[in-house]
Amino acid sequence: MSKQRFTYEDLYGHVRAAFKKMGCTEDDASTCTNVLMAAELRGIPSHGIMRLKDYMLMWQKGKIKARPNVTIVHETATTAVIDADQAFGAVAGSKAMRVAIRKAEKYGSAWISVRNSSHYGIAGYYAMMALKKDMIGMAMTNANPLVAPTFSVDRFLGTNPIAVAVPAGKEPPFVADFATAPIARGKLAIKEREGQSVPTGYVQNPEGEPSTDPGIITRGGAIVPLGGDYEHGSHKGYSMSAIVDIFSAVLSRANFGPFVPPQVPYLEQKEGAPGSGLGHFFGVMSIDGFQAADEFKAYMDEWIKTFKNAKPASGQKEVLVPGEPERRNEISFREEGIPVSEKVIADIREVYEILGLKFSL
Amino acid sequence: MSKQRFTYEDLYGHVRAAFKKMGCTEDDASTCTNVLMAAELRGIPSHGIMRLKDYMLMWQKGKIKARPNVTIVHETATTAVIDADQAFGAVAGSKAMRVAIRKAEKYGSAWISVRNSSHYGIAGYYAMMALKKDMIGMAMTNANPLVAPTFSVDRFLGTNPIAVAVPAGKEPPFVADFATAPIARGKLAIKEREGQSVPTGYVQNPEGEPSTDPGIITRGGAIVPLGGDYEHGSHKGYSMSAIVDIFSAVLSRANFGPFVPPQVPYLEQKEGAPGSGLGHFFGVMSIDGFQAADEFKAYMDEWIKTFKNAKPASGQKEVLVPGEPERRNEISFREEGIPVSEKVIADIREVYEILGLKFSL
Repeated sequence: MSKQRFTYEDLYGHVRAAFKKMGCTEDDASTCTNVLMAAELRGIPSHGIMRLKDYMLMWQKGKIKARPNVTIVHETATTAVIDADQAFGAVAGSKAMRVAIRKAEKYGSAWISVRNSSHYGIAGYYAMMALKKDMIGMAMTNANPLVAPTFSVDRFLGTNPIAVAVPAGKEPPFVADFATAPIARGKLAIKEREGQSVPTGYVQNPEGEPSTDPGIITRGGAIVPLGGDYEHGSHKGYSMSAIVDIFSAVLSRANFGPFVPPQVPYLEQKEGAPGSGLGHFFGVMSIDGFQAADEFKAYMDEWIKTFKNAKPASGQKEVLVPGEPERRNEISFREEGIPVSEKVIADIREVYEILGLKFSL
Repeated sequence: MSKQRFTYEDLYGHVRAAFKKMGCTEDDASTCTNVLMAAELRGIPSHGIMRLKDYMLMWQKGKIKARPNVTIVHETATTAVIDADQAFGAVAGSKAMRVAIRKAEKYGSAWISVRNSSHYGIAGYYAMMALKKDMIGMAMTNANPLVAPTFSVDRFLGTNPIAVAVPAGKEPPFVADFATAPIARGKLAIKEREGQSVPTGYVQNPEGEPSTDPGIITRGGAIVPLGGDYEHGSHKGYSMSAIVDIFSAVLSRANFGPFVPPQVPYLEQKEGAPGSGLGHFFGVMSIDGFQAADEFKAYMDEWIKTFKNAKPASGQKEVLVPGEPERRNEISFREEGIPVSEKVIADIREVYEILGLKFSL
């Protein structure tokens, strides 16, 4: 599909205007836009502005509120549960991280579980909020169930990502942001549209046997956990995904596993949902709770340099540190513009028409 | 190899006597034995009493101290760095978890990074220490480098495990305890001894290409991260393993990655090691920091029952929740005795001879 490049500022302004028109406050409109645009800059368009249309349709159906009352419903010195009141996930997530950072400034660390929220974009955005405070940031979220536990055919888990950001000194920070499944839903859809097959180890058929058909997940199949099959440790990927689900949803009383509400307007919530909305989990640890931040960052630089200097495998030109590919995208997209597909631009145009805004990209 | 069954009590007494004879206090001898015997009971003999001989030889060479001065070198309300003073890992790990639990009782959560430690057995033991306090427990450790980062041929990471234990109500607790690599070193050694090959996705050759030779890691090869190859998400396994290494060693100033000291007596520490000993990381979150513990545990029961009732794949009879297989081993081994190989019994006999103890198993 053909792509056109746009400046960060042009896209930012257009996306932010849509959130404003839905009724978001100035701050919340900026927050929602910041998160989507961070995904674009980092080269993760599946979590970028292509989400705007679904967000708007979810808002239109009353499933997301533009003026939510996001409140702390339970807390201690270093823990809290936040009820997001059906906020845009970005609003809930950013508030939760701000609360965590404030608590960690006083007590060294803090952990927040959030319920009644919605899709929040890239987990890495929230983890990275801690960096400028010389803190380690963590973020997880549960998600629309597409992944079957090891030995099962039931789609009981999302691709449940984990993000961890660690500050460094002269080196760029360490930023890991990864799904606990081998492949994203969006990438399967692209392969299906192109009529291609996928390698074994991505999906299984309705009987739980390996499949190479990317469309199988719309016909009773499922994505497998990271690891692929039991022999290759899929129970470890299943464990990680389960931990994300428990921290995000059981701690907060959001919906867990199979009951996570769909984040697209054309699917309905499964009956018998035991909790409130979708759940996230955030954590912050202040570096100076462990050692002087400058000393830590110098030692972290050593870690990063050591791994960057690992000997590449045959046919590879370098070894990467988590966060490096996304950082390179950010540098190049800021300079050369962000590539956006025609389909996404058409979707934004449609959002503008529905909202009664004047499109000028 | 033929195995004989022994009662928990008989093995416990014999192992504990060895730690006592090395000079451990009554408490520390019990702690070291508790950890090794927990691995036996849970069916993880690679981390059980077969480690006693290496531990004793490491102690004999002065690499592990039986009477260490384990101290907190830096702390806040909810964080700390502990210097283990070359303690047995079990002594360091148990103390760190006790400190974390004490802090979490007051402030809701706590996080401890440990340096200058040694092999600590199964990570799950420490995570489970939190359960009886209605807390979530977490434990990680770095380990002898055997795993190559994605795109590399250098063995820069251990099989770096993560354990998370979550209390439940009527159901047994959720206990995930997994390496961030698809296969354990010990299992490769068994396959090699038996002259068998392994599936692709476990190891790579010295050029970084897939291999099915379990012995390749003694000839310049490496274990791959969970995921197997880049196409199947090995960079996600690499990220997890890196996070374990950073939390365990960079936060505490232990040795990271390639510099982690060998935990066997016949290998020497790599030159230029930047830190102190091996590192661990522990975390505790009090359930009542998020909601009433009883309500959480009832909701966690729902989570567990939902996943246990997932529909099994073709040819499978049930879907398991993390911790279930180990719990079943524990029940059966307590009733029928713990199976121990002749080799391990011979090793313990040798330990007894070296220590001048009278063997009577």
